[in-house]
Amino acid sequence: MTRLETALTKLFDIEHPILLAPMGSNSGGAMASAVTEAGGLGIIGGGYGDRASLEAELEKAGNSRVGIGFITWAIEDKPGIVGAALERSPAALFLSFGDHTPYVAETKRAGVPLICQVQTLEQARVALQSGADVIVAQGQEAGGHGMTARGTLSLVPAIVDLAGAVPVVAAGGIADGRGLAAALMLGASGVLMGTRFCAAEESLWKPEMKADIVAAQGDDTVRTSVFDLFRDPSWPAPFDGRAIGNASTEKWRDNVAGLQANLETERSAYDAAVERGDPGTKVVWAGEGVDLIDGVLPAGTIVEKTVAEAVAMLTEKKTYALT
Amino acid sequence: MTRLETALTKLFDIEHPILLAPMGSNSGGAMASAVTEAGGLGIIGGGYGDRASLEAELEKAGNSRVGIGFITWAIEDKPGIVGAALERSPAALFLSFGDHTPYVAETKRAGVPLICQVQTLEQARVALQSGADVIVAQGQEAGGHGMTARGTLSLVPAIVDLAGAVPVVAAGGIADGRGLAAALMLGASGVLMGTRFCAAEESLWKPEMKADIVAAQGDDTVRTSVFDLFRDPSWPAPFDGRAIGNASTEKWRDNVAGLQANLETERSAYDAAVERGDPGTKVVWAGEGVDLIDGVLPAGTIVEKTVAEAVAMLTEKKTYALT
Repeated sequence: MTRLETALTKLFDIEHPILLAPMGSNSGGAMASAVTEAGGLGIIGGGYGDRASLEAELEKAGNSRVGIGFITWAIEDKPGIVGAALERSPAALFLSFGDHTPYVAETKRAGVPLICQVQTLEQARVALQSGADVIVAQGQEAGGHGMTARGTLSLVPAIVDLAGAVPVVAAGGIADGRGLAAALMLGASGVLMGTRFCAAEESLWKPEMKADIVAAQGDDTVRTSVFDLFRDPSWPAPFDGRAIGNASTEKWRDNVAGLQANLETERSAYDAAVERGDPGTKVVWAGEGVDLIDGVLPAGTIVEKTVAEAVAMLTEKKTYALT
Repeated sequence: MTRLETALTKLFDIEHPILLAPMGSNSGGAMASAVTEAGGLGIIGGGYGDRASLEAELEKAGNSRVGIGFITWAIEDKPGIVGAALERSPAALFLSFGDHTPYVAETKRAGVPLICQVQTLEQARVALQSGADVIVAQGQEAGGHGMTARGTLSLVPAIVDLAGAVPVVAAGGIADGRGLAAALMLGASGVLMGTRFCAAEESLWKPEMKADIVAAQGDDTVRTSVFDLFRDPSWPAPFDGRAIGNASTEKWRDNVAGLQANLETERSAYDAAVERGDPGTKVVWAGEGVDLIDGVLPAGTIVEKTVAEAVAMLTEKKTYALT
């Protein structure tokens, strides 16, 4: 197949400019391995920094070259977790949602490329100054955690203009090859996809949640802090997350203060509903790109299909003619 | 110069796939004319449907072929305004923010192409079913009025998949040729730009407001209903607007209920502040694309520059190589 060579593929010596978002409880070793074996770069979701589950997922990745990602604010009280990750010589360390600067020096010393995911131009400025090797520009379209801040389409070129030779990767709302081709036109060197891979065969999610992703429409998704209040640990401001809207968001989205005031009671009610399998209560993280997701596919197929679609958009002049 | 021919340029028999957003108090006849004369399609902002000012701006457009746009909910109590607009045989009738269906029949009878701007996939479905000739997919990145809803990058391909042969135009966060090239990759046939043209020489805005656009960063913009509460007429839900954050949004953005409860007093205070030229109080509508805007330019130059940049992105393989 025709391939797309970019600054990102060169940096990581990979075939395709596609990164797997390191989603906790979702991007495990099997999925990271599948993405890497298909020519992208799989990144295991190290989430809140639980060492045992990280080790278990790294085990499942076998000999595949994969990266490791953490939720930056959550590892502040997990001393040694970054060091332990770096000892495994991951293809990259991916940090998002918080102050990554305490980890730059040891990552550089270990010779591991540092990918910083940002949600604003200002965060990008800090990440670049601190020596990030790759910037992931995440728009608010993205599923799961992020910020009510910038849209991908305008954030990417603005960061590209700052980044000089540092590769910028577009994230948020990208679920097919049109999104990859668009990202390259914005000046990005590749894409990071999360929601699309939630509906991969290798995703750690249950089949019902994958089916929810396939069935959902982008219009149905909402960016909210409601689920982060229900769940433990709560996330700090300014972060929130995009999920499929349901009974929980209906009730509390416009009354977050009310939820906070009754947190103990409401958490118990949420937990009980989840326990008894109440549909329409539990969080299903999802980005606006769900409209573009028609079925559950092997992760490797997603990588190849996305590249093939992007190449077609870039070469076949489907929407325009030059005159 | 090399040109981009698309379904949009063919439909309107124009040279470049660029539409001027019909911004009230901004996109007057001179700017619409300048965009059309440069090869795009200028659309006069008919705003709330004031007949006298529409006539005046049409006068200023001279013999240039321009479209006319209205705020759909606002013309409900302006009987005859659409008929009056159609009598001028505009290049297009552009409707956004409300139920456009009452106006479809007379627009069709007049043989005037109907452009419907939508903010969600569901609105696109309605617009397509009712016979819209062009769909503008406006993401929440957009400046001025819109909705806290979809991001441009994922909304556009989702609507393209629904639209069949009906041209889809991308709007929101697009301020340079990278955005135009990206829009084409998403399957769109062109772009609509608003904020970029706010900083055009022909814009009706005052020089200070144009300077604000040039100076602002996308991170500084906020989508809010605060200004629509301060100003008369108030906009109905679910619409809001993106503007440069200032003292007004600082104070009220997270307390819209508080503003509503004290509306009379606060409106007077706002009006007084605006009256005495208080910087940082008055609304300056702006989209996230402001990062990409470095100066005030003639509208025609903006059109040509955007196309040239897009052609360069599409043809020079700046970010990728095919292997």
